[in-house]
Amino acid sequence: MTRIAVCAPSTPITREDADRVLALAAAEFPGIELHIHPQCFATQGHFAGSDEVRLAALLECANDPAFDAVWFARGGYGACRIAEEAVARFSAAAMSKTWLGYSDAGYLLGALYRERIGHPVHAPMLACVRREGGEAAVRRTLGFLAGERSGLEPSRGRQPAVAFNLMTLAMLCGTRMMPGLAGHVVMVEEVSEHLYAIDRLFFHVTAHLGGIAGLRLGRVSDVPENDRPFGADAEEIARFWCARHAIAYLGPADIGHDGANRIVPFGLAERAEAQ
Amino acid sequence: MTRIAVCAPSTPITREDADRVLALAAAEFPGIELHIHPQCFATQGHFAGSDEVRLAALLECANDPAFDAVWFARGGYGACRIAEEAVARFSAAAMSKTWLGYSDAGYLLGALYRERIGHPVHAPMLACVRREGGEAAVRRTLGFLAGERSGLEPSRGRQPAVAFNLMTLAMLCGTRMMPGLAGHVVMVEEVSEHLYAIDRLFFHVTAHLGGIAGLRLGRVSDVPENDRPFGADAEEIARFWCARHAIAYLGPADIGHDGANRIVPFGLAERAEAQ
Repeated sequence: MTRIAVCAPSTPITREDADRVLALAAAEFPGIELHIHPQCFATQGHFAGSDEVRLAALLECANDPAFDAVWFARGGYGACRIAEEAVARFSAAAMSKTWLGYSDAGYLLGALYRERIGHPVHAPMLACVRREGGEAAVRRTLGFLAGERSGLEPSRGRQPAVAFNLMTLAMLCGTRMMPGLAGHVVMVEEVSEHLYAIDRLFFHVTAHLGGIAGLRLGRVSDVPENDRPFGADAEEIARFWCARHAIAYLGPADIGHDGANRIVPFGLAERAEAQ
Repeated sequence: MTRIAVCAPSTPITREDADRVLALAAAEFPGIELHIHPQCFATQGHFAGSDEVRLAALLECANDPAFDAVWFARGGYGACRIAEEAVARFSAAAMSKTWLGYSDAGYLLGALYRERIGHPVHAPMLACVRREGGEAAVRRTLGFLAGERSGLEPSRGRQPAVAFNLMTLAMLCGTRMMPGLAGHVVMVEEVSEHLYAIDRLFFHVTAHLGGIAGLRLGRVSDVPENDRPFGADAEEIARFWCARHAIAYLGPADIGHDGANRIVPFGLAERAEAQ
């Protein structure tokens, strides 16, 4: 039996979404037991409870040896406020766990990868169930935890890889949670940002990514209409800034804020195969 | 006679705004001669002309010994794409100039300050004329160039100071254009960002501002409505992240994206007095 703890370091989920995923897991994944921490439904201002409440729930999930994995329930914003302290307080029981999520959960995945704590994995979250194709997305994560490997992002090769939301990676750069990414394929995706903001984020992140093996661009979706066209699309922007910093642009990545979002275990693919 | 070159490293201005400011300068500042580079009216996609066109105009203005100052016409987005190369190609004629602007022009002010080229000054731009109180804002910049000091941000004391748009400073962090700000009072302001984005930007910038003398918060204006309240206001956010990184929070700064935006010469106040 694989036991998975679900907590929400950023924003809350609904009871309805939790019940849908519990039912799906019970029906299709008999080898998986989902434990949804009640903190997932807490609210305070923007967040799924105060920093203290979110931190306490995360520590409970991380430090309980009964759990094999911690699945972050939803993104939004907020994980960066607790990630550094959380990682500092993770016990030996956290060291063997798999950590799954993306978007705002990237602050935690980055910090965990930097500290070499368990296996951080870019993967659809519980709240993704309400997206178009959301059940397939949730099935991809649960399937991965059940040993299925068909949901992996297909471009992954022999180099270690990571995947981040572009904004999240930009904000991680230069902080105490930023992992060393030399030699890595770095995949980025973004949602709901103007193209000028995408360009600005690429200006910033590419200045911090010297030494990576190359960059892959996931989907840049729901770009708001601006008062005028930007003059370049997202791939042209990525190519421009990669060229500026002598970073290899490796092509697209099959990740994004959508139901088709694929799984990227951080690090070496062959180690992920063996997990 | 003080001769001021105006160019647009980011986005274009209108002929109408240029004419208003030319008329105001002619009527009220007989000691000032404004030279508006035709590139200010160029457009290509998001920008006031291509990177090449904007860079060429900026170099013309910067490297012409006939000009005493370069006034950036408008923010928006785009200066970061040309700032590094521009600064590398500034000649001896650039070294004594005063450089004025804010918002997106902060990339240039930061790079100039880092390279110790002339006198970077946070100040209202030509395009500010169309704001409420915009003529007063333009008058403040022209007055400063004419020797008037009443438009200076009033909190400035004996420590060196800088002022930045929060997003611009966040994007500068860790790049080759970021000036060393140890011992400085750092003033930041923001416009049109959600409070969760303000919080995220503070997470990032405060991680990069170790050793500053302290932080002052300018106005955070036109915050969009979110689907739920954030739970803290901009000052509480600033205080939270300053405390996290042991940065002194020094109180408000009289700067912002508005007509009341005051002037902050980068560096030591007494040197600004003497300029």
